[in-house]
Amino acid sequence: MQTNFEKKMFVRLHFLIFVSMNLVIDAGNTCVKLAVFEGDTLVFRQNSEVGDVAREIKEICDHYPRIKHGIIASVGNLDRKVMAVLTVFCEVHELTPMSKLPFKNSYATPQTLGVDRIALATAAFYRYPKKNVLIIDAGTCVTYDMVNDYGEYLGGAISPGLHMRYKALHDQTSKLPLLQPKEFLDYIGNSTETSIHSGVVNGICQEIDGVIDQYGSRFADLTVILTGGDALFLSKRLKNTIFADSKFLLVGLNYLLEYNKR
Amino acid sequence: MQTNFEKKMFVRLHFLIFVSMNLVIDAGNTCVKLAVFEGDTLVFRQNSEVGDVAREIKEICDHYPRIKHGIIASVGNLDRKVMAVLTVFCEVHELTPMSKLPFKNSYATPQTLGVDRIALATAAFYRYPKKNVLIIDAGTCVTYDMVNDYGEYLGGAISPGLHMRYKALHDQTSKLPLLQPKEFLDYIGNSTETSIHSGVVNGICQEIDGVIDQYGSRFADLTVILTGGDALFLSKRLKNTIFADSKFLLVGLNYLLEYNKR
Repeated sequence: MQTNFEKKMFVRLHFLIFVSMNLVIDAGNTCVKLAVFEGDTLVFRQNSEVGDVAREIKEICDHYPRIKHGIIASVGNLDRKVMAVLTVFCEVHELTPMSKLPFKNSYATPQTLGVDRIALATAAFYRYPKKNVLIIDAGTCVTYDMVNDYGEYLGGAISPGLHMRYKALHDQTSKLPLLQPKEFLDYIGNSTETSIHSGVVNGICQEIDGVIDQYGSRFADLTVILTGGDALFLSKRLKNTIFADSKFLLVGLNYLLEYNKR
Repeated sequence: MQTNFEKKMFVRLHFLIFVSMNLVIDAGNTCVKLAVFEGDTLVFRQNSEVGDVAREIKEICDHYPRIKHGIIASVGNLDRKVMAVLTVFCEVHELTPMSKLPFKNSYATPQTLGVDRIALATAAFYRYPKKNVLIIDAGTCVTYDMVNDYGEYLGGAISPGLHMRYKALHDQTSKLPLLQPKEFLDYIGNSTETSIHSGVVNGICQEIDGVIDQYGSRFADLTVILTGGDALFLSKRLKNTIFADSKFLLVGLNYLLEYNKR
């Protein structure tokens, strides 16, 4: 007869050997994020260049042979070859606006809702049930997405992201230099460079804080999630209380994969 | 002996015949603005395409033969031919960061201060003496410029303008459409288009209002001037009180021309 300890060990061993893993792929406008989930737990993540994705998928699947399912969400133009490679290793769900969604989608044109925004709304729906949640994704674009306490996705906004603003100032004028994001001491810039840093970094923070205030005055007990590649850089400069969570989109994709397996 | 009436008429006639006029040229990143001043009064203005400027200068100078002086401020790459044409008709001052400035310039790198921002600071200096003035120019870029109540130019910020944001969202992503500025009903966009309008228009207004609040908490009795091509469109959506003045930059250039004549 097994002792309790032996039973627990058996369950743990069974889990380790037999429970499958999910490969989650978020192909954004500028880079591709790869993540491996075991149940709800993210066990591995990696950022990848578009050209390297197929090779890296193979390496990850070799290293985690328990990956049985995968999900791809692409807002860019991901090479179809990547999809073909992935199907060799696991059963793949390609997220589209036609995928089954756990939340009520009140977008007027649901067929045009970006897959990144679908994933963020899904993560909010599961992680903060019966809460008013505003998700701000600071990546190539800054997207704002609202899920209310009825579990209903309402929509939001799409604004230029941090790097996009720097690049636009350079590309669309004759004389402004191309700069990389940088902390600044004072929002009154006293050189071209500090003026641009203030205009972009302070400007985007004023925008985000202002938008949070708008939603906060309309939705009770608003929870604000800040995610995306620039979340950490921006979070220090916001006056509002936010939760910074760099893996929110990946978590949402993993939930969507589970939901669409059923 | 002349009556008072005759004396006044003589002065007026003398003014009309002999007082010279100024031609003011503001060559921005996207279009060229031409204006004629008689003293402090703007008597004519016109927007022009870059390719048409030389011809239009000739037409204006033919129509206003009392134009004796001109000033050119170019933030873009204005054809040297325009300068050559202008010198045929009048004495020209080309505004550069080396021009004589009426205000104290506390920019750390005065030689890099854009001529558009110099003109705005000059207009603030003369129009609002001994006042704290924030000038926001909503054009290709949104520039913020601060002149304090000691008549000292402090600097400010440079942020992407309204059209620049729309263009960047399209140019720097794979799937977002290129839209033109449009009023929106709700900042919670429920389609790709309304999400972009909210992100750009509401975003830029939240940014501007936030920045005004920052300056307002630092400088007593702050006067805020909103100018530039998008001033009218944006002013309706701002919560702060601002003065919209579409000719502020031209007025500043006219003051600079007078100041540099001496």
